[in-house]
Amino acid sequence: MDKIARIDMGAVGGPKITVAGLGEYAGLGGRAMTSLVVAAEVHPLAHPLGAENKLVISPGMLSGTTGSMTGRLSVGCKSPLTGTIKESNAGGQAAQVLARLGYAAVILEGKPAGDDLYKIHISKDGIRVIVDNSLKLLDNYPLIEKLRMEYGDKVAYMSIGSAGERKLLAASIACTDPELRPTRHCGRGGVGAVMGAKRVKAIILDDSGMKMRPPRDPDRYRDANRKFVEGLRKHPVTGEGLPAYGTNVLTNVLNEAGGYPTNNFKTGQFEGGARISGEAQAELEIRRGGSATHGCHRGCVIQCSGIYNDKDGNYVTKQPEYETVWSHGGHCGIDDLDTIARLDYMDDNIGVDTIDMGVAIGVAMDAGLIEFGDREGAIRLMAEVGQGTPLGRILGSGAEITGKVLGVERVPVVKGQALSAYDPRAVQGMGVTYATGTMGADHTLGYAVASNILKVGGDVDPLGTEGQVELSRDLQIATAAIDATGMCLFVAMAIMDQPETSQAMFDMLSSHSGQTMTPDLFSELGKKVLAAERDFNTRAGFTKAHDRLPRFFYTDPLAPHNIPFLVKDEDLDRVFDWER
Amino acid sequence: MDKIARIDMGAVGGPKITVAGLGEYAGLGGRAMTSLVVAAEVHPLAHPLGAENKLVISPGMLSGTTGSMTGRLSVGCKSPLTGTIKESNAGGQAAQVLARLGYAAVILEGKPAGDDLYKIHISKDGIRVIVDNSLKLLDNYPLIEKLRMEYGDKVAYMSIGSAGERKLLAASIACTDPELRPTRHCGRGGVGAVMGAKRVKAIILDDSGMKMRPPRDPDRYRDANRKFVEGLRKHPVTGEGLPAYGTNVLTNVLNEAGGYPTNNFKTGQFEGGARISGEAQAELEIRRGGSATHGCHRGCVIQCSGIYNDKDGNYVTKQPEYETVWSHGGHCGIDDLDTIARLDYMDDNIGVDTIDMGVAIGVAMDAGLIEFGDREGAIRLMAEVGQGTPLGRILGSGAEITGKVLGVERVPVVKGQALSAYDPRAVQGMGVTYATGTMGADHTLGYAVASNILKVGGDVDPLGTEGQVELSRDLQIATAAIDATGMCLFVAMAIMDQPETSQAMFDMLSSHSGQTMTPDLFSELGKKVLAAERDFNTRAGFTKAHDRLPRFFYTDPLAPHNIPFLVKDEDLDRVFDWER
Repeated sequence: MDKIARIDMGAVGGPKITVAGLGEYAGLGGRAMTSLVVAAEVHPLAHPLGAENKLVISPGMLSGTTGSMTGRLSVGCKSPLTGTIKESNAGGQAAQVLARLGYAAVILEGKPAGDDLYKIHISKDGIRVIVDNSLKLLDNYPLIEKLRMEYGDKVAYMSIGSAGERKLLAASIACTDPELRPTRHCGRGGVGAVMGAKRVKAIILDDSGMKMRPPRDPDRYRDANRKFVEGLRKHPVTGEGLPAYGTNVLTNVLNEAGGYPTNNFKTGQFEGGARISGEAQAELEIRRGGSATHGCHRGCVIQCSGIYNDKDGNYVTKQPEYETVWSHGGHCGIDDLDTIARLDYMDDNIGVDTIDMGVAIGVAMDAGLIEFGDREGAIRLMAEVGQGTPLGRILGSGAEITGKVLGVERVPVVKGQALSAYDPRAVQGMGVTYATGTMGADHTLGYAVASNILKVGGDVDPLGTEGQVELSRDLQIATAAIDATGMCLFVAMAIMDQPETSQAMFDMLSSHSGQTMTPDLFSELGKKVLAAERDFNTRAGFTKAHDRLPRFFYTDPLAPHNIPFLVKDEDLDRVFDWER
Repeated sequence: MDKIARIDMGAVGGPKITVAGLGEYAGLGGRAMTSLVVAAEVHPLAHPLGAENKLVISPGMLSGTTGSMTGRLSVGCKSPLTGTIKESNAGGQAAQVLARLGYAAVILEGKPAGDDLYKIHISKDGIRVIVDNSLKLLDNYPLIEKLRMEYGDKVAYMSIGSAGERKLLAASIACTDPELRPTRHCGRGGVGAVMGAKRVKAIILDDSGMKMRPPRDPDRYRDANRKFVEGLRKHPVTGEGLPAYGTNVLTNVLNEAGGYPTNNFKTGQFEGGARISGEAQAELEIRRGGSATHGCHRGCVIQCSGIYNDKDGNYVTKQPEYETVWSHGGHCGIDDLDTIARLDYMDDNIGVDTIDMGVAIGVAMDAGLIEFGDREGAIRLMAEVGQGTPLGRILGSGAEITGKVLGVERVPVVKGQALSAYDPRAVQGMGVTYATGTMGADHTLGYAVASNILKVGGDVDPLGTEGQVELSRDLQIATAAIDATGMCLFVAMAIMDQPETSQAMFDMLSSHSGQTMTPDLFSELGKKVLAAERDFNTRAGFTKAHDRLPRFFYTDPLAPHNIPFLVKDEDLDRVFDWER
């Protein structure tokens, strides 16, 4: 990872490739790379779909090594959904392969004038940008099938479906998993629309002939990795809950806590919750010959993924994540796993964020377009997204636009991005993250559910305001740093509770780079990333007035606890107060 | 005008009416009233369609008197289109009638829970709020026909069409003209959606039994008004150009100046300009038995309105305004007056802003939905707005949303509102107003075209930057004050050039209220209104980053002058520098 490739898609005479050293970006990876590049190089008022925006693709600092859990790929740009800076990361194989090819970043710049569609091939022999109009408007599954005929199975694919080509604001970028299914998505913020605006349909990453990235101190790295894996295996969340039931283990937990947003955030408990829980899902998956335990990339020891088959044992989709099961399930009043799995497949295939997509459908239900609980209706609406009909385009533009176009007042978004499966009135710490996060509402920016509900990393009363700002702040800083390493965010569960696991991660970073990583330096890294993101957003016009939840969270109490969001504005404004 | 009526549409048990004195709002009218009430009483982060927003309806300070040109009605709220504070004013009869009924403001508050639709009747006997579900989804022309059967012809009507009921972001509020046609619209900012969210379909204003508002010094008022009218009659714009050709006199002028935005702001001259010019329009109107000279309210001496008939002499619509002829004409590559007149009628009937609507259609053309110049296609798209189809809802949400949903980069909006018929690259002073105006792009906030192109009130080079900030600043201040008086903004043309006409207006204000109005006090009034608006916007999250034009105006030069927008950011930030 000693070079950066820039591909100017708008160059006169066709795309122009420039490969150079790291310069000022040396040592960065993942979100640290994408956010620092975007903050430094993209005009804050650029149109997200215009030539001035850049799409920065970067493996994490440890990606491509023998280290476990290091397979996250970051994609960054100015978001067409939120107008903020954006980093969206995914699992799958792409990060490992790109890192082994030596690229700390591949940056798509400019915008071609014509209608041609391109694919980009990256291997040890260099980078080729190839016109391939035969791929036009293919969705991700058939697209990957077609590309596999040409490039085989020993590569990793990144791609956009029809949604990305149509520049829908909820469009995602898919990364293939070890079985070459386009199931791991950089989902949020419309990064797929930016790739579509640059007319890049797919990126083929071939690391044949390349080796694992060697650490500076191989023995110490191996040792640290072993301790790190031990730590993950012994923690109840990463060693038991996630492997057995996947992320959907949370449905019953949140439902019981009264923090499960139901029927577009009208109540905090869903009657049909148990029927779509992780426990029910795992039982069904195993019974149908699928799997409830599966890794989204090689080197994963948590194995929170799975395989969802239909009643005849045929593959439907990967195991839907908790947030997906919620967005298409409880949020829409739907309590049927087969419907949800079908919608999950359609999301992945069309290439849209499952969260903003599901939330948009729930908002459309609130507008009276279809009834809450209408399974066939939800599938019909999703099909329109894939067809690019006017209604499909509305929904594919995400929850905020759907609310505006359909005249709905109750629209659960911050900075234009949909909230996810934790109601901020019953998980107040999560509300702090939703409100103040640098990229709009996003649970992964500072997962306060940990200490509010799971009692990981501490115990903070989810219904109270005390300690929530500090919790969200600490998590946002730590997350920004973890997102730079290439490590899956779930490692945080073990790290927060087990000092020896935390130390093992620092040892991995130190022995890999040869520069000692300490908790303080790690925190500095996180703060540096957040500062760059906040600076970009300020220049783009974002103020503390945007660090607020929609008004209905303040005015409408949520059953069963019957309280509104309670954290005061002046406390929200303290989240980033180290900046002062 | 000694009382304010508040109607709480969300009160338990049904709408509740409270009438009280003016209190802190004494002496205010028009935009001064609406903006000060909204700034003081509406939560800056309120959802515009929610119970926390208020719709403030206020006649001007001189409305309801014998003074000429005093028939403007202001409507204010937090805008669902822009998120800023909003004031939108219209001619027609409503302001005069409401003022004679003694109301300085009628404020719609709250939001009813059910689906009932209401009409509000205001007469000397008080205010009645009446459920009338028979009006549901009627458009403005049939709606007014129906209401006339019940309330007759000696009243003024305010109403929303289907667009307002559907809460489309470009929905307007119609006011009837002297012939009871719903042709004068508070068009911009989606004020009709706010009325729709409050479930108020129509307001019937009956001033029978009421008298003209008496000035404190009747003789002096009469004398001042006479001089004022003389001034308007002798100025070439208000005495010749506007009466003869209406506002559409500007088509040839702007086209010649290379500042006529054509085919979604791609070039500055439209080949078909002469065919849709005011001169061509007036000739056609007169030939077909319509009229090119008509007043939108009693007491108007400029008479810039008109009657547009079809080839058989049947009424089609009122004479389309210059901005409408542009938005549906040159902006869309359409050079046919009959098509434009048909679209103008549909705008008025459905109840949408002609500017944002036409610009949205042009943006849709840029997206490839239909071709530029497709007359039938444009009418078909408008029909969808009236039908409330998904595509109609997209377009009826205005140009910004249309651009987002259809994935268009070239979207001419500031703060979510469409620019109008003056390209800021060829009329740089207009660009300053578009960028910095308190309510999104709006030529009427500071009509720099006056000195840039018409050479009224001075001579500022339209292609240069010098003097543009000062020009826009002075105009924005003066306009905010004029919008408080109830006077039609066109009086500014004569006022800027003729000191005696300016003095006559001040004399009207002084002799009416009994308090001396001076140029300084008038300027103070304007600054007070702007300060309230800017303060609201700041609390709503708007910063100097929002006081910018879209990037393409900076990066793409405009033919024939081949220059981009040149005014520097730091100069835009000087427009309101008296605040410092």
